[in-house]
Amino acid sequence: MKVKEIMDKEFIAVNPEMDIVEASIRMESHKKFTTPVLDDKRRLVGWITSLDVTRGLRENHKHVKDIMHSKDDIVHVHEDNPARYAVLAASQHKVVSIPVLDSENKVVGVIRTFDIVKTLSSLYEIKVSNIFEAMVRELKGVTWDELMEASAIVTKRETGKRVTAKDYEQRIKNSTFGEAIWATGGLEKFFVGLIAIGELVIARKVAKARK
Amino acid sequence: MKVKEIMDKEFIAVNPEMDIVEASIRMESHKKFTTPVLDDKRRLVGWITSLDVTRGLRENHKHVKDIMHSKDDIVHVHEDNPARYAVLAASQHKVVSIPVLDSENKVVGVIRTFDIVKTLSSLYEIKVSNIFEAMVRELKGVTWDELMEASAIVTKRETGKRVTAKDYEQRIKNSTFGEAIWATGGLEKFFVGLIAIGELVIARKVAKARK
Repeated sequence: MKVKEIMDKEFIAVNPEMDIVEASIRMESHKKFTTPVLDDKRRLVGWITSLDVTRGLRENHKHVKDIMHSKDDIVHVHEDNPARYAVLAASQHKVVSIPVLDSENKVVGVIRTFDIVKTLSSLYEIKVSNIFEAMVRELKGVTWDELMEASAIVTKRETGKRVTAKDYEQRIKNSTFGEAIWATGGLEKFFVGLIAIGELVIARKVAKARK
Repeated sequence: MKVKEIMDKEFIAVNPEMDIVEASIRMESHKKFTTPVLDDKRRLVGWITSLDVTRGLRENHKHVKDIMHSKDDIVHVHEDNPARYAVLAASQHKVVSIPVLDSENKVVGVIRTFDIVKTLSSLYEIKVSNIFEAMVRELKGVTWDELMEASAIVTKRETGKRVTAKDYEQRIKNSTFGEAIWATGGLEKFFVGLIAIGELVIARKVAKARK
């Protein structure tokens, strides 16, 4: 996934000569805490936040250029960068938005942290049963019921709690990957559980074939 | 993971009678776009953003209570809620921060989207080799070299490209879970690849045991 796939293309912008009051109204009406400052060719020359605007209004500055951060102080990404560059940048620099440039350094979008959260959380919200369905498709000769049976046995072994294959099926149909990794204590542990189930189901398949 | 584990406890706050200019200075000096409005008992009564402040300054309002959003209009979470409630709320309501309440409705923290991004991305930044190390620990009797060998065979089968066990080992040491799921085309596909490797390595182990 690339930066351009998760960026907001409907961003607002201001120019350096714009009156601060006008910039303030534009940002309020679009509910944007930040906006890029662009020249006539839509190239990035600066960046302002609504906190620069409150200071500008209090201290009676006149123009956007009087309060803006210069281009060199701004974290930015390129539209063809992997999306994870934007994720790392937002996390490291603690910013709520990041301008996106094309190959000519024109601003073509803005990445916002809640869009990143949306993208990342869509991974978390995958149903755990999807992963088991993928397992059944991959493990030729293993049925869904056999997989649920093996899962119930592994769960009993690892948690000490008796659970039926039907209970297990219900549980994975109602839970998401996000819940599962938080419940099992992390990605590696979640995966180790899946491997244990895979191992058991394959061992049973081999045993059945030998008979 | 609970909300209280990812919330910012060092948040700032204002009260309804505070002068807007004073609130503005406090928000700027702490670089906060939003702040809860609290009563004398630290209970949530409202919420202001820096965009409310720019409007307040422009329109010559005097006090925080003149510009604040009322408690009923604010998305909030409880400290003992699962952290994913905050993730879903940020993503659905497109907010940059969410107040966190305790059982007495006192504000005890603020969730910020970049903290959510940090938490979510820490999952993505797990090295793929960690998952393979967990596999070796789980699959008793399978060595690391046998696992790399099986991985190289599955990669050749699925991509058509020849890769040695050493190449594969190098690749997983340098790549993260985030890169891997984007490279393979999603979480299910990534797991299916791992399961194919697990299946092969177990089949080889069983064959070896029979000899």
